[in-house]
Amino acid sequence: NQTIQELEETLKVKEEDREVEIRNKDLEGQLSDLEQRLEKSQNEQEAFRNNLKTLLEILDGKIFELTELRDNLAKLLECS
Amino acid sequence: NQTIQELEETLKVKEEDREVEIRNKDLEGQLSDLEQRLEKSQNEQEAFRNNLKTLLEILDGKIFELTELRDNLAKLLECS
Amino acid sequence: NQTIQELEETLKVKEEDREVEIRNKDLEGQLSDLEQRLEKSQNEQEAFRNNLKTLLEILDGKIFELTELRDNLAKLLECS
Amino acid sequence: NQTIQELEETLKVKEEDREVEIRNKDLEGQLSDLEQRLEKSQNEQEAFRNNLKTLLEILDGKIFELTELRDNLAKLLECS
Repeated sequence: NQTIQELEETLKVKEEDREVEIRNKDLEGQLSDLEQRLEKSQNEQEAFRNNLKTLLEILDGKIFELTELRDNLAKLLECS
Repeated sequence: NQTIQELEETLKVKEEDREVEIRNKDLEGQLSDLEQRLEKSQNEQEAFRNNLKTLLEILDGKIFELTELRDNLAKLLECS
Repeated sequence: NQTIQELEETLKVKEEDREVEIRNKDLEGQLSDLEQRLEKSQNEQEAFRNNLKTLLEILDGKIFELTELRDNLAKLLECS
Repeated sequence: NQTIQELEETLKVKEEDREVEIRNKDLEGQLSDLEQRLEKSQNEQEAFRNNLKTLLEILDGKIFELTELRDNLAKLLECS
C-alpha cells in the first residue's frame, strides 16, 4: 500500500541502519583487540617486574656479601 | 498518506537506528579511552625502561670500578 | 816468678777479655731476639697475605656474580 | 824478664782476646744488618697497610654507590 516514494524512504533508512551496524561490529572488534593487547601488555609488564624484583633481591645479597668482605678486610687491618 | 500500521513500522525502525547509534558513540568513546590508556601505559613503560638502562650503565660503571679495585689489591699482594 | 808489674798486666788483659766476652754474650742474645722477632713478623705477614688472597678470591666471585646480574638485567631489557 | 813459658801464656791470651773481638765486631755487624732489615720490613708493611686502607675506603664508596643504585631500582619498581 506504499507509494514508490514511501518505499524509497524506507529502503534508505534500512540501508543507513545496516551501515551503522557494520560500523558497530567493526568498533566492537577493535575494542576487543585493544583489550587483549592491553591485557597482554600488562601481563608482560608484570612478568618483567617480577624478574626485576628477583634481580633486586640478588643485588641485595651481593651488597650484603660485599659488606661482609669489607668488614673482614677492616678486621684484618685492625688486628695486624 | 501512511496508514497507522505503516507509521508505527517507520517509528520502530528509527528507534532501533537511534539505539544503534548511541551504542556506536559509546563504543567509540571506549575505544578512544582504551587507546589513550594503552599509549599512556606504553609511554610509562618506555620511561621505566630508560630509567633501567641508566641504572644498568651505572651498574656497569660500578662493576668496572670494583674490578679496578680488585686489580689494585692483586698488584699490592704481588709486589709485597 | 812474675814481678808485680807483670802480674798486673796479666790481670788487666784477663779483665778486658772478660768484658769483651760479656759484651759478646749480650750481642748474641740481642741477635737471637731480633731473629725471632723478624721470623715472627714474617710469619704474621704471611698469614696476613694469605687472608688477603682469600678476600681477593671472594671479591673475584662477587664481581663475577654482579656481572651475571648485570647480564640478566641487560637481557631483560632487550627482550621486553 | 819473662820466661819462655810466661811469654807463650801471654801471647795465647792476647790471641784469644783478638778472636773474641773479631767475633764481637761480626755480631755487631749482623745485629746492625738485622735491625735495618726489620725497620725496612716494618716500613714496607706500614706502606702496604696504608694502601689497603685506601682500597678499603674505595670499597666502602663502591658499596655505598651500589646501595644507592639498589634503592633507585627499588623505587622504580614501587612507583611503576
